[in-house]
Amino acid sequence: MNKQFSGVVHIVGAGLLGASIGLALTVKNTRVTLADVSPTALALAADYGAGTPRQDGDPLPQLVVVATPPEYTAEAVLAALREFPKAIVSDVASVKQLPLAQLRAAGADLARYIGSHPMAGRERGGAIRARADLFTARPWVVCAHELAAASALRLVESLALTLGAVPVRWDPAAHDSAVAAVSHLPQIIASLTAAQLLDVPRENLQLAGQGLRDTVRIASGDPLLWTQILTANSEPIVALLEGVQRDLAGLLDALRDPEARGARRQIATLLAAGGDGASRIPGKHGTSNTFEQLTVIIDDRPGQLAQLFTDLEELEINMEDMRLEHSPGAQIGFIEICVLPEAKERAVAGLTARSWRIV
Amino acid sequence: MNKQFSGVVHIVGAGLLGASIGLALTVKNTRVTLADVSPTALALAADYGAGTPRQDGDPLPQLVVVATPPEYTAEAVLAALREFPKAIVSDVASVKQLPLAQLRAAGADLARYIGSHPMAGRERGGAIRARADLFTARPWVVCAHELAAASALRLVESLALTLGAVPVRWDPAAHDSAVAAVSHLPQIIASLTAAQLLDVPRENLQLAGQGLRDTVRIASGDPLLWTQILTANSEPIVALLEGVQRDLAGLLDALRDPEARGARRQIATLLAAGGDGASRIPGKHGTSNTFEQLTVIIDDRPGQLAQLFTDLEELEINMEDMRLEHSPGAQIGFIEICVLPEAKERAVAGLTARSWRIV
Repeated sequence: MNKQFSGVVHIVGAGLLGASIGLALTVKNTRVTLADVSPTALALAADYGAGTPRQDGDPLPQLVVVATPPEYTAEAVLAALREFPKAIVSDVASVKQLPLAQLRAAGADLARYIGSHPMAGRERGGAIRARADLFTARPWVVCAHELAAASALRLVESLALTLGAVPVRWDPAAHDSAVAAVSHLPQIIASLTAAQLLDVPRENLQLAGQGLRDTVRIASGDPLLWTQILTANSEPIVALLEGVQRDLAGLLDALRDPEARGARRQIATLLAAGGDGASRIPGKHGTSNTFEQLTVIIDDRPGQLAQLFTDLEELEINMEDMRLEHSPGAQIGFIEICVLPEAKERAVAGLTARSWRIV
Repeated sequence: MNKQFSGVVHIVGAGLLGASIGLALTVKNTRVTLADVSPTALALAADYGAGTPRQDGDPLPQLVVVATPPEYTAEAVLAALREFPKAIVSDVASVKQLPLAQLRAAGADLARYIGSHPMAGRERGGAIRARADLFTARPWVVCAHELAAASALRLVESLALTLGAVPVRWDPAAHDSAVAAVSHLPQIIASLTAAQLLDVPRENLQLAGQGLRDTVRIASGDPLLWTQILTANSEPIVALLEGVQRDLAGLLDALRDPEARGARRQIATLLAAGGDGASRIPGKHGTSNTFEQLTVIIDDRPGQLAQLFTDLEELEINMEDMRLEHSPGAQIGFIEICVLPEAKERAVAGLTARSWRIV
């Protein structure tokens, strides 16, 4: 399953994902040909080292990867299946049922098609932001369907492994339902929240802390791309948003008359449900979200961060996560470090002994 | 304004904020007395070093700081004004209009009262999480009102400065309106979003990335404390949530029939508004949110982080922010570093020359 590609990989769509796949394969000495409706995007990706624009006489591809915006996916997959009658064709669109249904309706040769979805991306797109390591250690969903040849499935899993990703097999409907919750819901929520800030006086936003920043961080994604994604997966998204709408309506009722009987219970119940829901998200390495956090105070003096990480290493403390917390106008910062619960006491004692100020 | 306290500071309420203030003042050699309705909380804070439980015969306080849960604030301020007829009294509740109105209605001696609100806190409360540095470099809102004596205002600003915070003067209504947007709205949004995860199958949550995690991070706050805060500031919160409700209803209409005329425009417009809103949040040091980001790949080998920060220092690259991005099952990580736009090219060139893999 982990074999390198013996043949050419052809990539249709030279944006962030297509160019990143091309770069990563090129690095691994797989020959990559590229196509894009935009000559500029195509030339840019080629200049970047993601492959060479496909020309007459190029060897036939073993695998075609369609990395167009999602609304062109089915059309591009269909064209590839026809143009290369022996190639396996995959796509990397972030919805999986719609293209499959469109291909079925068009009578495509589905034995040679396997949809997939690398759980990787960046807030901003384009070949210029491509990177060969984009997929490293990320889940790469491979969507089996009943007509697909086993060899097609294996080849796409091989692509994922070659790029350093972790292939996972999902049913298309289950995939779409999952990404509605873990990706599309937070995207919409971030946008809804950030949109309310348009009318907030600038001086009020000076009091913003990390909580607001984190809540709206992903709101800066590309509106046109996200419009395509959301419309292509509207059903499970609508179901989730109706849940938000219902809970929001209940909360608004309670907040409009907080002295009413039951109002406080309604508010507290929702807040508790949120805490319970958040705790269900698995942490790093697939473990549950149970790291202990400690905060180290650093000042702006040179060498502080390097010293801190040297000390952590010497103390043999493994960081599971970290974050730099900043304050408006601050000349110092806080580093939040997450460690395994059993390591916390040792970390606090060791760092304190080395004169770090810790919480 | 920056003078140390000459007299005793008495703190009513020995939770996270009260105990942190007590600790910080004690460190600065100011005598602190403590009170709490819970003997356990009081003893814990005293054991922790936040001050001594107030006893008959203790010297009268120069300043009383009320740090009770918000629903007891006015009552506790009133009691303090009566018990200590020469002391200045402040509070640190996260809403400011309601306690002032309650004190007015009760005929309190408002010349000696100044409400305040340190923009600091932690997801979990209690004296056991107190830290002397909790307020360092944070804004500390001081709410002047027309009846307050100038000496009261100065003394509370002096408290903020002594604790390392940055005092800022706000009108109580403006404060409540600001925190509704920067603090209460994201808290509710995080809870609403996280609550929807209760019904999501656990395996689906395995696909979660940083976007979802960031969006719901603050949902783990204390439901009872937040119920008090939200009910005490319901009016501006309701206005903001009605905006969310309106935008959400429009989005749901569009997503229920994405092929309808205008549906895609409606979705794209909301997403674009979100991007615009997010960009209005000021970044570190009060500057606008215009840092360039670069991502450095690190592996789990010892010394990688220390080496990276040493290299950044030697290259004289000043980090404005950083974050460790992790992947499920990953043995490597990505460090996102934010730098000023003019420093980006130099950072990329310098780090690449030192063999760092960068995006």
